[in-house]
Amino acid sequence: MSSQPRYIAIAQRKQAELAAAIPPEWRLPDHAIPEGMLSVAESITEGPKKYGRVSVMEIPRTCGLLSAKELDITENYDIRGLVAEMSEGRFKAEEVVRGFCKRAAIAHQLTRCLTEPLFHRALKRAQELDAHLQRTGTPVGPLHGLPISVKDTFNVQGVDSSIGLSALAFKAAKENAPLVDLLESLGAVIIAKTNIPQTLATLDSCNHLFGRTLNPLNRQWTAGGSTGGEGALIAMRGSMVGFGTDIGGSIRVPAMCQGIYGFKPSLGRVPFGGQMNGQIEGKGRIGLQAVAGPLARSVADIDAIMAEIVPRAELFGEDGIPGSWSSHPVPRSLSPPRGFTIGVLKTDGLVTPLPPITRILDEVAQTLRHTPGVEVVELPVPSVLPKCQALAGRLMGVDDGSHMLNLIESMDEELTPWLQGRMKRGKDLTIPQLAGLQAQRAEVEKEMLKMWTLSNGSSKTRRVDAIICPVAPHPVPQLDRYNAVGYTSTFVLLDYPAGVVPVRPFADSDLETGRDMDAPVLGSWDKANRQLWNEKTTDRRVYLGSPLSVQVVTPKQHDYELLQAMEVVDRAVQGRVGSISAKL
Amino acid sequence: MSSQPRYIAIAQRKQAELAAAIPPEWRLPDHAIPEGMLSVAESITEGPKKYGRVSVMEIPRTCGLLSAKELDITENYDIRGLVAEMSEGRFKAEEVVRGFCKRAAIAHQLTRCLTEPLFHRALKRAQELDAHLQRTGTPVGPLHGLPISVKDTFNVQGVDSSIGLSALAFKAAKENAPLVDLLESLGAVIIAKTNIPQTLATLDSCNHLFGRTLNPLNRQWTAGGSTGGEGALIAMRGSMVGFGTDIGGSIRVPAMCQGIYGFKPSLGRVPFGGQMNGQIEGKGRIGLQAVAGPLARSVADIDAIMAEIVPRAELFGEDGIPGSWSSHPVPRSLSPPRGFTIGVLKTDGLVTPLPPITRILDEVAQTLRHTPGVEVVELPVPSVLPKCQALAGRLMGVDDGSHMLNLIESMDEELTPWLQGRMKRGKDLTIPQLAGLQAQRAEVEKEMLKMWTLSNGSSKTRRVDAIICPVAPHPVPQLDRYNAVGYTSTFVLLDYPAGVVPVRPFADSDLETGRDMDAPVLGSWDKANRQLWNEKTTDRRVYLGSPLSVQVVTPKQHDYELLQAMEVVDRAVQGRVGSISAKL
Repeated sequence: MSSQPRYIAIAQRKQAELAAAIPPEWRLPDHAIPEGMLSVAESITEGPKKYGRVSVMEIPRTCGLLSAKELDITENYDIRGLVAEMSEGRFKAEEVVRGFCKRAAIAHQLTRCLTEPLFHRALKRAQELDAHLQRTGTPVGPLHGLPISVKDTFNVQGVDSSIGLSALAFKAAKENAPLVDLLESLGAVIIAKTNIPQTLATLDSCNHLFGRTLNPLNRQWTAGGSTGGEGALIAMRGSMVGFGTDIGGSIRVPAMCQGIYGFKPSLGRVPFGGQMNGQIEGKGRIGLQAVAGPLARSVADIDAIMAEIVPRAELFGEDGIPGSWSSHPVPRSLSPPRGFTIGVLKTDGLVTPLPPITRILDEVAQTLRHTPGVEVVELPVPSVLPKCQALAGRLMGVDDGSHMLNLIESMDEELTPWLQGRMKRGKDLTIPQLAGLQAQRAEVEKEMLKMWTLSNGSSKTRRVDAIICPVAPHPVPQLDRYNAVGYTSTFVLLDYPAGVVPVRPFADSDLETGRDMDAPVLGSWDKANRQLWNEKTTDRRVYLGSPLSVQVVTPKQHDYELLQAMEVVDRAVQGRVGSISAKL
Repeated sequence: MSSQPRYIAIAQRKQAELAAAIPPEWRLPDHAIPEGMLSVAESITEGPKKYGRVSVMEIPRTCGLLSAKELDITENYDIRGLVAEMSEGRFKAEEVVRGFCKRAAIAHQLTRCLTEPLFHRALKRAQELDAHLQRTGTPVGPLHGLPISVKDTFNVQGVDSSIGLSALAFKAAKENAPLVDLLESLGAVIIAKTNIPQTLATLDSCNHLFGRTLNPLNRQWTAGGSTGGEGALIAMRGSMVGFGTDIGGSIRVPAMCQGIYGFKPSLGRVPFGGQMNGQIEGKGRIGLQAVAGPLARSVADIDAIMAEIVPRAELFGEDGIPGSWSSHPVPRSLSPPRGFTIGVLKTDGLVTPLPPITRILDEVAQTLRHTPGVEVVELPVPSVLPKCQALAGRLMGVDDGSHMLNLIESMDEELTPWLQGRMKRGKDLTIPQLAGLQAQRAEVEKEMLKMWTLSNGSSKTRRVDAIICPVAPHPVPQLDRYNAVGYTSTFVLLDYPAGVVPVRPFADSDLETGRDMDAPVLGSWDKANRQLWNEKTTDRRVYLGSPLSVQVVTPKQHDYELLQAMEVVDRAVQGRVGSISAKL
């Protein structure tokens, strides 16, 4: 009898299974792997120093495993373009899927982004699609052959949804999640499931089964979480689009960390059911409900995928709502006539953004001011906004949390370092306490409504179409140093759709070496945040080159308008301004 | 010191206040009031025998209080027509509002339908509207001058929301409910608030402050609840449209009882906030959430009012969602091409409808089968449907109910007879119990989705556009005899929009004298229901002339499609069939 913790043997079996799912001919030669890829166990406990400042972004191109055609397929198309190539017979689905599977395998060997490679299943499906097209002359659907990936939480029939817990490993899901069914019905091909943090409740994707996902831009930076595997995979072009979930920021944080686009929809726009989350069933309906949404490499790709999902959400998911992927007109003030109005929200009033975050927001606002058809207004901080992070946090923890902890302890797993001291057994709320929190939430919603609305006498019209604000109050931090999720969790609390648009890399001029923040410290979260900028404890140069992003937010269920607003912001910061009136 | 219960003096003051709000010249002469109008106290305890089989529907026309012009105003227009008369200056808002106030006062003297006449306020507002139109040449809004009424629960600034409880009397609301603001911003004029049951949780609108609302069609029948005052007022044309709320059927039941139209929207279509309901705040968000909606005299009037509310709901209410009052396209099966498909759901599988209810549904289905452009399909009873009534009931009672009972007991009020033995202090659920109920609800929703959806291989399309089913498993019963709300509460549980369309009166041929039901008894609710048809305990002739209605239901958030479906059913049963393709 061995005295080792029970989870070890399971983790080893799981890792062997994962490795075996990657064909030998897709394995990177040792020389192509940068030094310092730690073991799974080490990757959990070691900090950024062990990794060195290494980008692995170029390796798929240089390693020699991908053919010229595979590089073309994986690098030169957006979703609509790639699907057109396959639907019109210029590419076979099989060759496209193989190219992405291979690239995903490479990405995984460099970042530990996968949990379940589904390469065999994906290639089989691609062959069926090719056969269908050949037989009928028509593609299977509007996403014919599109290689996609999903967070490990989503059930795929016959595949584990272990979410990194040994207690859930080797327990294959009995049916697909509705989102998986929906995507497959349109011809999409799921090539892999991706890595997440233990408990799903941290912002570093790190667990005992699959180790830590690394940020391919720089292994010292966090890949973010909880959809961190997707963040790394999409950034490395190992999949065309990935689906994650977001309750505190789990789509938007990895998007920010990898410099890609993340889209957290309103509740119901994307079917959410059929996932494993290690919580008691029904919890989301009484506390805070997570939502599912895409991570992608462009606004156009988010557009392409949401355009197909939104009108079908209500047919596939009991939690889906009807919707058309087009603009929802809302009574607007017509006198004076005005353009698309973007509000700038500089802070949540709880944690003051560090200087580079404020600067990037100012830059974007300034660019938007010069965009024809756009009006920019500075918004005062709504009085209830500083309370939102705590309220969202309390609504995430309405029960005692024992379900998850029992799973972990049943296999003698330890909590990962960041969780130690933070994840504890709590106490169930009482019904009056829970109702009281939801009543507070209603008050917050009511107050926040005023930010969007112009009252003129008794009539009300839309005043602000979208807002821009920080994704986080700090740049992409090193491993395990993410601080304060209020900037993201608030928009789940409010059910406002919210997306992330990357702007530019952190530059030397952002360092402000020798200059301290002079704004007064607002509280403990704010104080902790400044540690990420304090030159005594942090070398600001760690941020050099990291993606700086902005968050774009629209009112509840205005998801298509969020897409439009993200496009406006994206075009503006890319310098491709021009007239946006045709799109709006 | 008096030994009478504390509530008595307050009830007397409240009744005096109500009486004083009706100008002496609007009081019915004694000879115009049928015998047997009981006192407030008697109206609570006495049964149908005391009232006799009396209709008061003709009295407004015969009592002599309304001028010929006032009869014209109150009888010959629908909402759009009446607003056009005022907006184009042919009627003054003041004369329209006065006509309806007067008629509401008459209705109240015959049915006790009002709690707060707002006649003075309404006339003042109407004068302002007239002045605005004269000054500017344009109406205030699309509902310029429209007389409307609201259930007592809705807050109107400066007016009580006592909901029939002495503990809440003489505590004026500090601000308007968002729905009130919305309607007033469009030019509508609130002329009165209307009667409800003690606790709001019964289907007879009866309380110690205002007594029992009587059904104007026949005082032996229940007026229904909890929006019973609106039911009686709208039926008597004392208001153009009334707003109620519905969690177990509180809009649809009074609509059925009075033979008018009721519309329970999906959550968020009509702002709900700013109401008094005597419950702990936030309860609706964790258990079952009531919704607000209209009672009216035609589908056209529901159309007219919802068309103005739905696009503005998100601007006025934090609980509102965006929406346009137009059709929401959903992927439909195109091969073979098919018409508007209406499913017939004959029973909920828990309580077998009594024979006249089955017959009316069959008649409507048969008529629809002959309607061009409509396809009718019989639906099997979904396996989860019989569980819905109990699940909805448990979600209505997630807390111990003490908030309401404390209010009642604080003033020594007794429970009204129907509530005695039914309304008790319970026990708060635990968080796992509550989450478990919501998880069951998700399972029910998932199963019910199959009723609407056609699965063809992996693709899914809309199979059924709307369903018709009973409103209740029995005809309009006598006072305090309503049984089983599963047919209505289920569609709040599922958040399906649902409306009531009156079909025809109960006829001699519906009596089936001497014929018993032969279907096996399904359980205690079914057994109780049969008492309403058992010739040993019930004289079936009490139902003669009572309105028989059907319920129309569409999928979640397909509120405009519900309006369309109600119109299809309404036209079909009115014999005005014709082609409906232009409308659909």
